[in-house]
Amino acid sequence: MHTHAFDDAIALTRPPGITPDPTAGHDPGHDPGQHAGIYTGHTSPHYWNMVGPYGGITAAVLLNAVMQHPALLGEPISLTVNYAGAVAAGAFLVSAQPVRTNRSTQHWCVTLTQTDAAGETQVTTTATAVTAARRQTWSASDSPMPAAPAPETLPVMRPPAGSVAWIDSFEMRGIQGGIPTLWDGRESADSLTRLWLRDHPARPLDFMSLASLADLFYPRIWLRRALRTPAGTVSMTVYFHADGAQLAATGSGYLLGQAQGQAYRNGFFDQTGQLWNPQGRLLATTHQIVYFKA
Amino acid sequence: MHTHAFDDAIALTRPPGITPDPTAGHDPGHDPGQHAGIYTGHTSPHYWNMVGPYGGITAAVLLNAVMQHPALLGEPISLTVNYAGAVAAGAFLVSAQPVRTNRSTQHWCVTLTQTDAAGETQVTTTATAVTAARRQTWSASDSPMPAAPAPETLPVMRPPAGSVAWIDSFEMRGIQGGIPTLWDGRESADSLTRLWLRDHPARPLDFMSLASLADLFYPRIWLRRALRTPAGTVSMTVYFHADGAQLAATGSGYLLGQAQGQAYRNGFFDQTGQLWNPQGRLLATTHQIVYFKA
Repeated sequence: MHTHAFDDAIALTRPPGITPDPTAGHDPGHDPGQHAGIYTGHTSPHYWNMVGPYGGITAAVLLNAVMQHPALLGEPISLTVNYAGAVAAGAFLVSAQPVRTNRSTQHWCVTLTQTDAAGETQVTTTATAVTAARRQTWSASDSPMPAAPAPETLPVMRPPAGSVAWIDSFEMRGIQGGIPTLWDGRESADSLTRLWLRDHPARPLDFMSLASLADLFYPRIWLRRALRTPAGTVSMTVYFHADGAQLAATGSGYLLGQAQGQAYRNGFFDQTGQLWNPQGRLLATTHQIVYFKA
Repeated sequence: MHTHAFDDAIALTRPPGITPDPTAGHDPGHDPGQHAGIYTGHTSPHYWNMVGPYGGITAAVLLNAVMQHPALLGEPISLTVNYAGAVAAGAFLVSAQPVRTNRSTQHWCVTLTQTDAAGETQVTTTATAVTAARRQTWSASDSPMPAAPAPETLPVMRPPAGSVAWIDSFEMRGIQGGIPTLWDGRESADSLTRLWLRDHPARPLDFMSLASLADLFYPRIWLRRALRTPAGTVSMTVYFHADGAQLAATGSGYLLGQAQGQAYRNGFFDQTGQLWNPQGRLLATTHQIVYFKA
């Protein structure tokens, strides 16, 4: 049985002999349910970016640690990931701690660390997450899915030779606002991109892959300026508007993704995005603030 | 000299005899700059909501702990606050730790805790923040300020008698999408609110008050459904698109705030917002996910 590269990339194991980390958080002695879960993982060449993994896969790894914790309550509602430093190729440690468990919600602090050659441990990524036991209520959307041609009618975007590896782990079919083909520095009128997207090879959707797909939009400043400005996500938030059963029902179908910039100011800009399933259900909304060098 | 109620509400002091908390985070022994700053504060009656403080003031308190840390690098870029449980009236402890300091960015983990009558310490709020030493670059906005009548031409919104206390700590002048006056359960077509807002009494803008104002929009579901559904913010993110000098230049003028819902699904909805200064500069963008009971 062949494992999908995504599942390999987010795989976590509980190292033998490691007990819950007494230094990882607040007063864990009182409540065993507050113990940090400690997991080890390993970067994947299939999701490699220029100097570290694709940010979306790191988000998926951190969320996976929450999902594997024995004290997990419910399913993800929100996830914020802060990219503090590049994750080096190789092994990493993830600590996921439920710092507060209420009747129907649970709050998590998550950290990814690596130990360098000199034996120094560095925090590369932090995250907070909220999970919740949801119940059925009145529901609605103020964000209808934009009209778009069916994905099968649009060409698959082919990255140029020599592109970063992670690009090949996704299938994208552009609708509008594609990556500039002419880097001539001519500012465009807007920064809106729409595309169909999914994992490649296709893989049934779950919370981890949805978090990963939320980071798939290329930096809005590239579209806005038609300059290949160096840029990297500093912090990303994903709000989940579907439960696991709804994600499973989406299966390995395409999602319609949309992203747009809001402000570009002195080295940082933000972009806001939405991800719908083919049936028009808004599965997730996402925002990120991105460093740029200009 | 009279102190503004906002400054009283966010005031933090370093308790004597408390050294940096060795349990608060990652490996602080190696780098004194990674020590958690420990501060004490106290809830304010001027910002009291129903069962705890107004969420925006708690966000301001947590950000203030970052701003007071002796190892602070630069100014806030992003702030995510997770409301894990109600803050009780009285004293609280804030721990702010720089978990990673790069050349131009710094990543923070912040926690607000309280000790209850039984001596149990509870995490009520967690936050992550990124600060950065910004340098001047190409800048632009994809979010022009909507046209609106001047604030002085619009009536000040008067809360009904018996409203929560914090309402009186703000001045709001509605432009559109005001709080329903008829709670008849008739669903409205959209969830967009625009208003002029500032602290009351007026107070010069800074990062803390900007974070606080970002939480001022009432729950979108009230506007959408015309039902006074119980609702409370679970997680809020603020991206800062201005530096301290630009905030100071805004002074105590009005901000134009706009908020809109995106999705309402099984007990949680999200809303996205923008805050411009009167000169039309987008100072902050914000998002939050909100619990609702329906």
